[in-house]
Amino acid sequence: MNAVALARDIARPVMSPPYLIFLGDAPDIGWAKTGAGLAYWRREECLGQFRAGTATVDLGLPDLDPTAAVAAGARTLVIGMANDGGYIDDAWVPGIIDALTAGLDVAAGLHQRLADHPQIAAAAARAGRRLFDVRHPDRDFMPGTGEKRSGLRLLTVGVDCAVGKKFTALAIERELRARGVAADFCATGQTGIMIAGRGIAIDSVVADFISGAAEWLSPVAAVDHWHVIEGQGSLLHPAYAGVTLGLVHGSQPDALVICHEAGRTRLQGYERYSCASLRHALDVHLEAARLTNKEARGIGVSLNTSSYAEPKARALLAEATEETGLPACDPVRFGVGPIVDAMLATWH
Amino acid sequence: MNAVALARDIARPVMSPPYLIFLGDAPDIGWAKTGAGLAYWRREECLGQFRAGTATVDLGLPDLDPTAAVAAGARTLVIGMANDGGYIDDAWVPGIIDALTAGLDVAAGLHQRLADHPQIAAAAARAGRRLFDVRHPDRDFMPGTGEKRSGLRLLTVGVDCAVGKKFTALAIERELRARGVAADFCATGQTGIMIAGRGIAIDSVVADFISGAAEWLSPVAAVDHWHVIEGQGSLLHPAYAGVTLGLVHGSQPDALVICHEAGRTRLQGYERYSCASLRHALDVHLEAARLTNKEARGIGVSLNTSSYAEPKARALLAEATEETGLPACDPVRFGVGPIVDAMLATWH
Repeated sequence: MNAVALARDIARPVMSPPYLIFLGDAPDIGWAKTGAGLAYWRREECLGQFRAGTATVDLGLPDLDPTAAVAAGARTLVIGMANDGGYIDDAWVPGIIDALTAGLDVAAGLHQRLADHPQIAAAAARAGRRLFDVRHPDRDFMPGTGEKRSGLRLLTVGVDCAVGKKFTALAIERELRARGVAADFCATGQTGIMIAGRGIAIDSVVADFISGAAEWLSPVAAVDHWHVIEGQGSLLHPAYAGVTLGLVHGSQPDALVICHEAGRTRLQGYERYSCASLRHALDVHLEAARLTNKEARGIGVSLNTSSYAEPKARALLAEATEETGLPACDPVRFGVGPIVDAMLATWH
Repeated sequence: MNAVALARDIARPVMSPPYLIFLGDAPDIGWAKTGAGLAYWRREECLGQFRAGTATVDLGLPDLDPTAAVAAGARTLVIGMANDGGYIDDAWVPGIIDALTAGLDVAAGLHQRLADHPQIAAAAARAGRRLFDVRHPDRDFMPGTGEKRSGLRLLTVGVDCAVGKKFTALAIERELRARGVAADFCATGQTGIMIAGRGIAIDSVVADFISGAAEWLSPVAAVDHWHVIEGQGSLLHPAYAGVTLGLVHGSQPDALVICHEAGRTRLQGYERYSCASLRHALDVHLEAARLTNKEARGIGVSLNTSSYAEPKARALLAEATEETGLPACDPVRFGVGPIVDAMLATWH
């Protein structure tokens, strides 16, 4: 089966733009990852934000309620919040029902399905609107085979969750394409799927099939084609490392980019756990990656330096390079040029 | 919540003994793990084996067809085969339907549910018999917390799949109890669940919740109580390591026993992958375990020496001790006494 056929195969019916981003009670951007990702990478499709409840986060979009959003042309309310456990918080339900009643479809990337929530399902049926649960795989997988596939693969890995793995992968895809190199972003989480219009929420597959799903996500491809795969979690995370390991093994990455947020010293939400050094975290992921691809190597560092002024940010990137021997970028602030330079110098 | 309450909570309705073990087309014991485990640990509940099709494996039980088994008092046909992918093979269906028609319930530990197979479901409905799918978790989980729990925990880990991790854990539970130490086997696979009457098929939970399910399986307990946890897969397996890592992190084991089959040099079914040394495999699992329990240590080696005569078997165990510095046992042949001696000397 060729890569193009498979890439089409994993496209799924996705929600219709333009979007109204629901921010519910999200206190900050960390709780509004999905909304923030969509607002950044698909800005032209986001008409507004709906801050019902106590949300204090601001994506910089116009504030609209569902009725105003419908009048402006919006077609889908996207749940912009991501909580641990991925359930529908009771506090969100009135806002979701308002949106359905106003005439919007609703899309979510939660473990709990919108369609399984009785009040939401009933409101959707009354209003004749559609519910999209993009996190749920719409096909079955098999266990991984561990057999090497042609093509080049980059996987972003992390010291922790929520450190920029998706953003970094999207930025690398964009930079490769800008340089005329064939590249496809492979989404492994709900926000990535919403942005890309395809992918697999790798944390939602049955545990036995993590690596098999990852193998399927970046199929056989041309020898100079890059699959740029969105990483998940961290091998050093007490809750999510299993997902990460299956994704590392199944992805068979040639190149790893280690991602972190500068200044974060404890795992987010797991403060009893300290953050590993970039070097150690990269080494742990490299050792795992080499089980299925002996040639795996680190190719860059992605650092979120948004808490620091620019001179300090540049100093932090220089320190990261010193520590790892690899080019270090802040993709939001300075782009990923040096990482892509290294990829092309190494493999092209 | 205390340990006893939780232990009761995870009991599930299980199939009724006595059993007829269905061996279908299993060519050898490796394909009949479930049947073999039940025949060994619950011999008194197994009336016979049903070798329809081309099965050449022999569990040493009387050969009975479903009608003869019902006449002898059997109540449940247990699917004794385990294939990669955990699906219902077409070749098994006639035997399963014969059993239902003869008046037996049917139990399986496959990913694919008996109840989802149209012909099997229809036959069960016609015959008024029950279908048990023990691999499917009957509750929801949350992500792991990484918070330390009281009580002692031992986890069996492996160089590969199918090397005796379940058997070793059951043997250690039995030996601890024989010495008056409080101990509970925690089943993490279909055969273990059938033997113990409770547990979680850890490879069947949603990937995000592997460690959370593992935390839930061995809850807070008395400080001198042992949870003896059945391991799964191997961190060095290209298909199943994600399951293993979540289980290691969530189990927070104090003690690891590394398991292997003497003489196996390539991963079973993944022959391009060579087997790691006992020392290396133990070290990789220990490093992972220390993320959630800094005190984790290796406490023994379990070696399946069944391919060797006794003098060679004893020499292999001595070599394993030499390599690892730990007591080495073949649980089937010589018991697990030296490992339990080491546990008691270290923690009691």
